[in-house]
Amino acid sequence: MDQLQNDLTAGLAAFATGQILPSVAAKQVVLLSALDWLAVGVAGAEEPVSRILRGQANEEGGAPQAHLFGSGLAPTRMAALVNGTTSHALDYDDTHFAHIGHPSVAVFPAALALAERADTSVAEMLEAALVGMELSIRVGLWLGRSHYQTGFHQTATAGAFGATAAAGRLLGLSAQQMGLALGLAATRAAGLKAQFGTMGKPYNAGLAASCGVEVALLVSRGFDSNAASLEGEYGFGTLHAGSGDSVAALRGLGQEWLFENVSHKFHACCHGLHAALEAARELDLAAPEIAELRVRTHPRWMSVCNQTAPQTGLGAKFSYKTVLAMRALGYDTARLDSFSDKLCADPRLRSLRDLVQVEADDSLSETEAVLTLLRRDGARKEVHHDLLAPMELPQREARVREKVETLIGAPRAQAAWQLLRGGGPARDFGRLLSE
Amino acid sequence: MDQLQNDLTAGLAAFATGQILPSVAAKQVVLLSALDWLAVGVAGAEEPVSRILRGQANEEGGAPQAHLFGSGLAPTRMAALVNGTTSHALDYDDTHFAHIGHPSVAVFPAALALAERADTSVAEMLEAALVGMELSIRVGLWLGRSHYQTGFHQTATAGAFGATAAAGRLLGLSAQQMGLALGLAATRAAGLKAQFGTMGKPYNAGLAASCGVEVALLVSRGFDSNAASLEGEYGFGTLHAGSGDSVAALRGLGQEWLFENVSHKFHACCHGLHAALEAARELDLAAPEIAELRVRTHPRWMSVCNQTAPQTGLGAKFSYKTVLAMRALGYDTARLDSFSDKLCADPRLRSLRDLVQVEADDSLSETEAVLTLLRRDGARKEVHHDLLAPMELPQREARVREKVETLIGAPRAQAAWQLLRGGGPARDFGRLLSE
Repeated sequence: MDQLQNDLTAGLAAFATGQILPSVAAKQVVLLSALDWLAVGVAGAEEPVSRILRGQANEEGGAPQAHLFGSGLAPTRMAALVNGTTSHALDYDDTHFAHIGHPSVAVFPAALALAERADTSVAEMLEAALVGMELSIRVGLWLGRSHYQTGFHQTATAGAFGATAAAGRLLGLSAQQMGLALGLAATRAAGLKAQFGTMGKPYNAGLAASCGVEVALLVSRGFDSNAASLEGEYGFGTLHAGSGDSVAALRGLGQEWLFENVSHKFHACCHGLHAALEAARELDLAAPEIAELRVRTHPRWMSVCNQTAPQTGLGAKFSYKTVLAMRALGYDTARLDSFSDKLCADPRLRSLRDLVQVEADDSLSETEAVLTLLRRDGARKEVHHDLLAPMELPQREARVREKVETLIGAPRAQAAWQLLRGGGPARDFGRLLSE
Repeated sequence: MDQLQNDLTAGLAAFATGQILPSVAAKQVVLLSALDWLAVGVAGAEEPVSRILRGQANEEGGAPQAHLFGSGLAPTRMAALVNGTTSHALDYDDTHFAHIGHPSVAVFPAALALAERADTSVAEMLEAALVGMELSIRVGLWLGRSHYQTGFHQTATAGAFGATAAAGRLLGLSAQQMGLALGLAATRAAGLKAQFGTMGKPYNAGLAASCGVEVALLVSRGFDSNAASLEGEYGFGTLHAGSGDSVAALRGLGQEWLFENVSHKFHACCHGLHAALEAARELDLAAPEIAELRVRTHPRWMSVCNQTAPQTGLGAKFSYKTVLAMRALGYDTARLDSFSDKLCADPRLRSLRDLVQVEADDSLSETEAVLTLLRRDGARKEVHHDLLAPMELPQREARVREKVETLIGAPRAQAAWQLLRGGGPARDFGRLLSE
């Protein structure tokens, strides 16, 4: 066990193939992430990048092993590629701050594709996805902030290992085989932040998912590899500016579920705006009463999402002034179609956003915001919100289910929730992608 | 033009999509590399790694767009993956020392698959492959020795860009689209030397080929990407220990064909033994006359291929003493089956290899060797060979064709040569893979 604690690959492989005892919260949150992943994928299925990938899948054809978001079936690797890309197309999926990435979009596509191929239950799919996401968070931690700051896209790189773990678990790999599969993933895990702002960003998530599927399948067929490809002088971590702290990455693995802290997005806009929008929920903003609204936020966001007078729906997604004015006017910021060019032309919105002041405050973290409301009657109210602050499970469930119903309609959302909670074949869950 | 000379991606994209005027030597050598690639792929088709990949392709099925080494057809991406891996399985394919890698195994699989899909001619396939290989050599130069020494496998990384260029050219991408495709390749080009000695090494070549096919197809469907993903602070080169000398990489592009200097392997063993074996050809070694044979070689090879008394066919491939004794006894070192466990037990071989002395000499480069023969009659003869020394085209043609006939038999070798020289549909060449 001491040795395992210092040997990253062996430790991860043992975890990924062994019996697990998830915490109550981890078990519950993985249901919510599965539901959320389904919804953002279905909502993103007609984005241009998703249509292009699906078009390529249709050209290639092949064994109808797993469902695609939108329509159709494809072999598992292609399904993982299409679904990983599609579910990240809107950038509306979940985020894990320690991972520095989006765990669901890399792992669920791999887990679902292999669960459909093996005709296993939803429960087995969820267990494999939970293991894969926990593993990708641990690898994300191990790669660390240095990796991300250098220019690598952790969703893709750490995500590839998580997808491998989920796929390998569903294929019944031994711990030794899982080590080989993780080693093989190390020779192809990739993804550059240089692609942010293009279709390359969601594609990176698809690449991670499809990498996991392919390497796990190959190892299950007897493929040989060097399991010692993550660590060491010539390993993936060293070669990709990784922090290399294996002890921290393995700490509490199997007992402590870092995945519990995954953060769901409840607003269809830049993540930098979310803490302010959550604070605004607690303020009961009402347009006619506002004399002034002051936002304090981490300095990083000033260059990311502080457009002062956007003219387009896309611009609105990167504007504190706009989203807070929307909230005060009763627009639902969870809806994709709330963000439109027409919105930006609304004179009520335009005059309201002039009352919003945005300030950088370097005493705040990137997940925090402080809103100060001065009402016309002279009252003053201040609310602080941190996205990292734990949300009670019942509240979290309510918020995620509300978002999902907004995105895909109540009947489909309820069918999915029932299936996730009650069990049934994974293929039934797959069908909900293409309904 | 000045701008192009400093802008790597724009320069490469213009070259890859423009009219080309290859030198006589480049035109001739690409035929030889195509023939050589066919032979090493056919010879490697029953290796375990090749069978595993083909098994996966069979499971997935799909549109029969391109032939696979061994048997069957598959969609283009899968064909490129299978054929790239299979043709590198024996490590018997060509090498380019400036590229620091194996250009054919990354580029031909992509070019052939897309030529078959488009039903173009062998001539168009060869032109695209030549462009792709020249480009991969330029990118290999740009990444440089620092990239390789850090632990990246240039065959895979630089190769992915070459495969992209070949595939994109056959798809008729514009220069602007080619830039997008190269940028997209940058977010997934990968490959670790940590996989050397496992199936992961040939797989890396397959990954490069399949990356090129997929990104070029996606861009032809309208996929967006950041073309500026190779260069710059957050580009592939900077993030992967690249040398970054764009000017050197672009120098003479279109006029000077670095590809001409590609080196074919004429012996089915470790590359470190080849200079000595070539020197031995010039010595007219005959077993009964040898009193002593001294080999001087670059110090690097002493830990790579100086096994003194190997017991297995695999060990024999890494042993100066054994291969030189084989040569003196008339074994054909171009044949795969010359290297056997039985060979190692041959008493004539065992006593002869005791007469071979191996010495490190740091005045020699990695491509040089010096053989000194002391004959029983007292005569002394010394031969120096450098694998980089240019070989006259007729001699090179004779050597490659002889190797290919040894590997795949005269009828198939001659049919391939006729098709490569005389033209015809690329699909006919594809058929020769699976015959």
